[in-house]
Amino acid sequence: MRLRHLGERAVIERLRRAFGERRSDVLLGIGDDAALVRGPRRLLLTTDILVEDEDFILADHPPRLLGRKALNVNLSDIAAMGGRPRHALVGLALPGDIEAAWLQRFSEGLRGAAREAGVALVGGDLSQASKVMIAVTVTGEAKRPVRRAGARPGDAVYVSGTLGDAAGGLRLVRKGGGRGVAKPVRPLVEAFLDPAPRLKLGSLLAGRGLASAMIDLSDGLSVDLAHVCEESGVGAEIEAGRIPISEALRRFALDPLALALDGGEDFELLFTVRPDREAAVEALARRWKLTRIGRITPGRRVYLADVRGRRKVLRPGGFEHFAG
Amino acid sequence: MRLRHLGERAVIERLRRAFGERRSDVLLGIGDDAALVRGPRRLLLTTDILVEDEDFILADHPPRLLGRKALNVNLSDIAAMGGRPRHALVGLALPGDIEAAWLQRFSEGLRGAAREAGVALVGGDLSQASKVMIAVTVTGEAKRPVRRAGARPGDAVYVSGTLGDAAGGLRLVRKGGGRGVAKPVRPLVEAFLDPAPRLKLGSLLAGRGLASAMIDLSDGLSVDLAHVCEESGVGAEIEAGRIPISEALRRFALDPLALALDGGEDFELLFTVRPDREAAVEALARRWKLTRIGRITPGRRVYLADVRGRRKVLRPGGFEHFAG
Repeated sequence: MRLRHLGERAVIERLRRAFGERRSDVLLGIGDDAALVRGPRRLLLTTDILVEDEDFILADHPPRLLGRKALNVNLSDIAAMGGRPRHALVGLALPGDIEAAWLQRFSEGLRGAAREAGVALVGGDLSQASKVMIAVTVTGEAKRPVRRAGARPGDAVYVSGTLGDAAGGLRLVRKGGGRGVAKPVRPLVEAFLDPAPRLKLGSLLAGRGLASAMIDLSDGLSVDLAHVCEESGVGAEIEAGRIPISEALRRFALDPLALALDGGEDFELLFTVRPDREAAVEALARRWKLTRIGRITPGRRVYLADVRGRRKVLRPGGFEHFAG
Repeated sequence: MRLRHLGERAVIERLRRAFGERRSDVLLGIGDDAALVRGPRRLLLTTDILVEDEDFILADHPPRLLGRKALNVNLSDIAAMGGRPRHALVGLALPGDIEAAWLQRFSEGLRGAAREAGVALVGGDLSQASKVMIAVTVTGEAKRPVRRAGARPGDAVYVSGTLGDAAGGLRLVRKGGGRGVAKPVRPLVEAFLDPAPRLKLGSLLAGRGLASAMIDLSDGLSVDLAHVCEESGVGAEIEAGRIPISEALRRFALDPLALALDGGEDFELLFTVRPDREAAVEALARRWKLTRIGRITPGRRVYLADVRGRRKVLRPGGFEHFAG
């Protein structure tokens, strides 16, 4: 059954059933002109749009995982503020010839990711389009929000997890659909198709006052670090040998460092730490997979130093550009 | 200059300059991972997506007016809850070959509509697409929100303004671009290209406790009244002769009543009023262009009565369907 045969009303009814949950802070959910919720005093708001063939390939992305990712990329922004996500709205533009089963699985994925994060889906909109387009908006609460603009010279630069995996996964998926890939590189495909927002880590770092600045790695280390430096009016020196690269990426890629620097969509956290808080962060490093990769410097430039200490300027690369 | 030559960075910088305003309730605007605002306790949330060739025709819609409309259709949802709008987020997917001047004028329109309504533009996202896609999310505050589900048998049914004008305007625009149309029908084109959200009226009706149920007329009277009846578990009887139709629509259309019943996008308010509040609403009727068009009934059906009192069932028509 394709959506065109189901009709708008039935589609909305299905979404409403899939998303309608009772929660004490949701006074009015899907089904009125607007949702009505109990709003936190310090309200975070973020929105992301995903466009077929630009931000994802429909044939390569299982709908359940696409539903998860559409929400999780927004939750990653909330994580980067050290916030707790609360509510989500989902705008969907869908071709009439898409299968109803696709929408079913997409909704299941979205709902699953929402439940995991404690997010209530409270509203949305539906339109038609020749390509799938997904617009998600998430609200959150931030008691001690961490900005991009808080880094100072001398601060340590940390990242969570390993970098470049999602970019490696994207290459694998584009090569062959990503399904039957060899087990050792499967984590790369998973990192790309089903990234996890670092909500607990972000909230922990913010809550304990450990991060002086924070951003999520959506565009790649070189780009996102440049954002932090620009907003903070500082520079940085990154040690290439310290950048965490997974075993899977080393096996798969000829240029793992390039992917770790310029690959996007890792959705790990990049944050800076005052010298007097470093010991506290180091105590968390093993459990939370945190790696110190460099240090904030005066001046505005970002340098990359190799193992011999030779420096070069790290230019924002970014594996995807608006200008395509 | 086309967007592809401008680059993503420059586009975002332009949007940031266009939208960045200082306001005491905006703690962090565009430029961080998420916006941070002072949230109202009773928070309204609504989102709408507009897709080129489905919801608007790029060549027919002046970019400044499209920018206004993209925000105003959301503000209309806030108006229908009796709320006051506060913040907006804008997701844009744009083709690389669109003119930078188009984006400039679109942004001006959006900003103008935001200023008129006291809305701060606090965030957004940008992607690429083969067609223009606009996703706007608006937050609002509702002290006494009015739901769709509050109508009771005996309540009067009111609408604001005149109905069917936007549908007439759509026809005119599709015929010839809408520019050089004759003066008497120009209000129709304006109603379609540049609809006004009824924020003051919605807030007045809610604040004085005059509306028992309310919805904005986005899909057309027959569809939107059916929503109110369904949610309230009631029926209605509408008098065809009372439906407010403009002089311009009577001149232009052979079937003004059909457009008034099934035409969408008027963005007027449809609301119900308890008998003991009718006098208070009548006192506002002239100034706010309010018309009583019928009454809520028990049962679930919606009837349309002609001037001789003959009744027929009013089926939800809707001039645009998901199934196309």
